[in-house]
Amino acid sequence: MTDPRPPLDPRLVAELRATAAAMADAARIETLRHFRSDALSPDNKLAAGFDPVTEADRACERAMRAILAARRPDDAIVGEEYGTVPGSSGLTWVLDPIDGTRAYLCGAPSWGVLIGLADAEGPIHGIIDQPWTGERWEGGLGAARLSAPQGERPLGVRRGVELDRATLMTTFPEIGTPDQAAAFRRVAGRVRLTRYGLDCYAYGLLALGQVDLVIEAGLQPYDIVAPIAVVQAAGGIVTDWQGNPAHGGGCVIAAASAELHAAALAILAG
Amino acid sequence: MTDPRPPLDPRLVAELRATAAAMADAARIETLRHFRSDALSPDNKLAAGFDPVTEADRACERAMRAILAARRPDDAIVGEEYGTVPGSSGLTWVLDPIDGTRAYLCGAPSWGVLIGLADAEGPIHGIIDQPWTGERWEGGLGAARLSAPQGERPLGVRRGVELDRATLMTTFPEIGTPDQAAAFRRVAGRVRLTRYGLDCYAYGLLALGQVDLVIEAGLQPYDIVAPIAVVQAAGGIVTDWQGNPAHGGGCVIAAASAELHAAALAILAG
Repeated sequence: MTDPRPPLDPRLVAELRATAAAMADAARIETLRHFRSDALSPDNKLAAGFDPVTEADRACERAMRAILAARRPDDAIVGEEYGTVPGSSGLTWVLDPIDGTRAYLCGAPSWGVLIGLADAEGPIHGIIDQPWTGERWEGGLGAARLSAPQGERPLGVRRGVELDRATLMTTFPEIGTPDQAAAFRRVAGRVRLTRYGLDCYAYGLLALGQVDLVIEAGLQPYDIVAPIAVVQAAGGIVTDWQGNPAHGGGCVIAAASAELHAAALAILAG
Repeated sequence: MTDPRPPLDPRLVAELRATAAAMADAARIETLRHFRSDALSPDNKLAAGFDPVTEADRACERAMRAILAARRPDDAIVGEEYGTVPGSSGLTWVLDPIDGTRAYLCGAPSWGVLIGLADAEGPIHGIIDQPWTGERWEGGLGAARLSAPQGERPLGVRRGVELDRATLMTTFPEIGTPDQAAAFRRVAGRVRLTRYGLDCYAYGLLALGQVDLVIEAGLQPYDIVAPIAVVQAAGGIVTDWQGNPAHGGGCVIAAASAELHAAALAILAG
């Protein structure tokens, strides 16, 4: 797929990537400050159900916004905890300070900091950062790599895996509405292996060629803009369940190949 | 609960702990050699279903057995890949080279190397090692700690969490037989949060006071001997679903407190 957008000025690209990296560095400090802390206590954002928001989420988003205020004051911001700030540059940062707050509260290393950058057409850059393991996925604006304490590795999806040999990931088995859950189960019934519980880490594994499909429902834009950029930089495809752009959230499918994407979309449609 | 067994000689304790640590060090090398490798291809141990065994499992168990042959030749061994070797010392090493092979094959860091040590009464020492994150849980024979690149931390369960505020973990939503799955779902329906997919890492999180219950079915001895030692060293309780010793495998419940254990057992019984 050829991107019809003209290339950005290289100095701007370097500035944007450095800004995103600085935000991810700041987010590591704030999220690790509270990770596995005895003092961590979730508030309850919803009257019914359980949607934990922690001080870690808020402090992390504030730290990222402070960097944008200093370095990119004309960019717009959409963030999970502090809402939308309009901008004039045509660029929007889309921030989820802790994607997978439940995993974070359990002490599991599958949550991540999501830093997405979009223009009017959609995602152009994204970072998925896992502070505890020290893994950082960067995709877009010329980047396609995982940096980890063990070294760097280029991103790349795996190709040639047919649906009946594929590995599928999602966060909850009770995904979405009953109809959405039924659609998901139809796909799960056709693949070789379905795994749960990895939040944004699942998109990172797709971008590393370790899994083949990620299917989710009920997403917000800040859940998916950064993963889209990472998966696309690795050669994968991300759309909604109708094959349309997914950066607005909702029902999302990420696939390692066009063939798998088409096969799964057909099954989701029923 | 007072352990009725007489204490072991301190020199023997030191030797056993050093042997277990040497095995875990060797296992890290063998498991990381193949983790996220493009060349990794699962064989299929079962004619029906998908039970991957990889060269990594086998090489890892061989490396651990070589250490025992050199350092503890009179101890018995039970291992997932290479079966049982009898011994004469009264001590048995119970080894799972990669607990969570499916997670390993997906590139997710929730698998672990399990090194358990048991006498005639049951588990006396255990290591849960996660080579990718560098986390090592040690419990028993005076040890109760997590060692990680970020530092050391003593193990300890959290107390005082009631069932309706508890976090429950298991590996698969389709746990065990239909009756076992129904029993699990009764407990899941009573807790605040249920999470899937973490394999042995879930017991480590219980021992760190991050989650409150782990409930599984269909376990083998090598899946649970090491986690029992780690959870007990942290002050937790591990039994089967009838409240009996669990080191023989089968249906297992691990709980952070006697109160939670009793409450969950009653619900599992129906």
